[in-house]
Amino acid sequence: MTHSQRRDKLKAQIAAAGLDAMLVTDLINVRYLSGFSGSNGALLVFADSDSECEAVLATDGRYRTQAAQQAPDLEVIIERALGRQLTARAATAGVQKLGFESHVVTVDGLDALTGAVEGHHTELVRASGIVEGLREIKDAGELALLRLACEAADAALADLVQRGGLRPGRTEKEVGRELESLMLDHGADTISFETIVAAGPNSAIPHHRPTDAVLAKGDFVKIDFGALVAGYHSDMTRTFVLGSPADWQREIYQLVSQAQKAGREALRPGANLRDVDAAARQMITDAGYGDHFGHGLGHGVGLEIHEAPGIGATSAGTLLAGSVVTVEPGVYLPGRGGVRIEDTLVVATGTRETPETAGARPESRPEFGPELLTRFPKELAIL
Amino acid sequence: MTHSQRRDKLKAQIAAAGLDAMLVTDLINVRYLSGFSGSNGALLVFADSDSECEAVLATDGRYRTQAAQQAPDLEVIIERALGRQLTARAATAGVQKLGFESHVVTVDGLDALTGAVEGHHTELVRASGIVEGLREIKDAGELALLRLACEAADAALADLVQRGGLRPGRTEKEVGRELESLMLDHGADTISFETIVAAGPNSAIPHHRPTDAVLAKGDFVKIDFGALVAGYHSDMTRTFVLGSPADWQREIYQLVSQAQKAGREALRPGANLRDVDAAARQMITDAGYGDHFGHGLGHGVGLEIHEAPGIGATSAGTLLAGSVVTVEPGVYLPGRGGVRIEDTLVVATGTRETPETAGARPESRPEFGPELLTRFPKELAIL
Repeated sequence: MTHSQRRDKLKAQIAAAGLDAMLVTDLINVRYLSGFSGSNGALLVFADSDSECEAVLATDGRYRTQAAQQAPDLEVIIERALGRQLTARAATAGVQKLGFESHVVTVDGLDALTGAVEGHHTELVRASGIVEGLREIKDAGELALLRLACEAADAALADLVQRGGLRPGRTEKEVGRELESLMLDHGADTISFETIVAAGPNSAIPHHRPTDAVLAKGDFVKIDFGALVAGYHSDMTRTFVLGSPADWQREIYQLVSQAQKAGREALRPGANLRDVDAAARQMITDAGYGDHFGHGLGHGVGLEIHEAPGIGATSAGTLLAGSVVTVEPGVYLPGRGGVRIEDTLVVATGTRETPETAGARPESRPEFGPELLTRFPKELAIL
Repeated sequence: MTHSQRRDKLKAQIAAAGLDAMLVTDLINVRYLSGFSGSNGALLVFADSDSECEAVLATDGRYRTQAAQQAPDLEVIIERALGRQLTARAATAGVQKLGFESHVVTVDGLDALTGAVEGHHTELVRASGIVEGLREIKDAGELALLRLACEAADAALADLVQRGGLRPGRTEKEVGRELESLMLDHGADTISFETIVAAGPNSAIPHHRPTDAVLAKGDFVKIDFGALVAGYHSDMTRTFVLGSPADWQREIYQLVSQAQKAGREALRPGANLRDVDAAARQMITDAGYGDHFGHGLGHGVGLEIHEAPGIGATSAGTLLAGSVVTVEPGVYLPGRGGVRIEDTLVVATGTRETPETAGARPESRPEFGPELLTRFPKELAIL
């Protein structure tokens, strides 16, 4: 889908909401709708395509060339106060109801926008989450990039294991750095978030930053990492054991593994998000480890590492076909160690071959069920 | 300075502003005041130390262990809706005037806070930029980390040049990746922002992402990069020529070099920020290149890569002793090439040796003037 087609979808939504135009100030939303990926930008989209122009992109002088290259189909204005300037532009164009992203614009920022409509008949209207809603369903181009990101991560972890990179005596930092380097070798532009390598008792910390802690025989080693390709993130966690697993390690690994499978199998279009969470969580709770799984089951992945939908015990709403989400239960025993197993998957209808799925490898396309993007094996690997 | 001492400074300021407590929701500000570096957190600080407790940190379940480790002196509460919960806590504690960061809290976010004070005599009061103001003057511990970050970047670039890493035939991406790897070798935790390597005509793009473009003889190669050490950023730009420089290249290099020197020399405590900008900009304008220097002269550097103060043509305010800033003029000729030269420096009083400066190497401590943190040579290097 082109950026222009995405803007058309937004136009339909804002028109339906009774808005004449929408000011987009979230940078990721700006990128999604325009292609512009600089660190400072805002976009004004008119609901009515008969307006003097369909959309205006604003950025600062550093990005003049980049904006012209990335958004050749848009008028670009170079300004310091982006939101204020685009709001003034909307007011001058006669916009009566201008939507703004009230979940993004700060309290002080709204003052500036309000100042810009003074003396005009333009009303600033809260309009939060509209673009995020569009982003929840990935188009074919996005799925292609997400597959590439997941493949880079898969290939990097396979290389790391094959070359014996996970062995007693190395530090968490060394392992993390090698894995990151391998992702770049396999086509990642960069990493998609700070790599987690957590050995031994550190594996009980859900979000642990790699330290100089040394991997030792008998340790759990939990690795949570991802690749970034053209703005799209992958997200995967695998947990290994160095040497023979103790009984308690086998027990929680099997438990998390079964819960993760249950969570994946619950990924059906239309499923209640909290039911998906419960499919995995109930199994962990029934085994007596409910208190040791203190985070949600998963989240959407795309231009952001965490985006809609959130899949947790208190989530509202249902899963949409074409969304891309993680499933990542964990059990963490403080002072001892923890296990998390995480995949990134496409929620698929499975009823027919779509352009998005036609290119996927057959083993990942069961007739029903989600498409697995992170393929690295999940059996308990004893290194 | 300990985190507790930083909070004491904040307490004095909020008391002076007539506030009973302050809700800090900016993550960097939370880190500065508490030491907690997770990706989700908020902090409530009471003005009166006789309150039931001096400050409360809130985060989610993923960071339970990390918060206890990084902020052992604080009460930590584990909550999903951090800001709302801390606001309710303040209301219950009888806080009458609760400051919030109106430059950070979104319009929707304020609704949530307002809901939390319902039924209490607690007023939410805008209080923007207070912690950022404290952060502008770096303490001894911060300066030590900034020096380490700048040293890692210096050493990495020196290695890159010495091993012939900047030569025709390599791609921008290859150069960027090698430089990033060298920074890690020299003690960086990670990079401080996306490395810019811009060769030939690409050097005319102020913020260029590395591509597969190949470095060629006669090219300008502009490299803007930095290291991150314990949360503190370095920022440096150098521009090289591959082979003999053409006359136009020599001309703009010398011009930017002189302008950069003038900018550095203008870094005096108490100087007007716009005068500092003008010291460099006037030189470029007088030479007829004013239209080709489209960004500000510099910015503060610390826990963020861009923080207070901004040094530009429209900046208000004055430079403070102990602040750390960049000086980075540039001249960019579209389609041909560009030059930027950037250092990170400490604005120093120079009147006496302070604990902060005693450890610095002598050549960087002229009796007056700023302390240069990025030491890589700035003469036109012909590779």
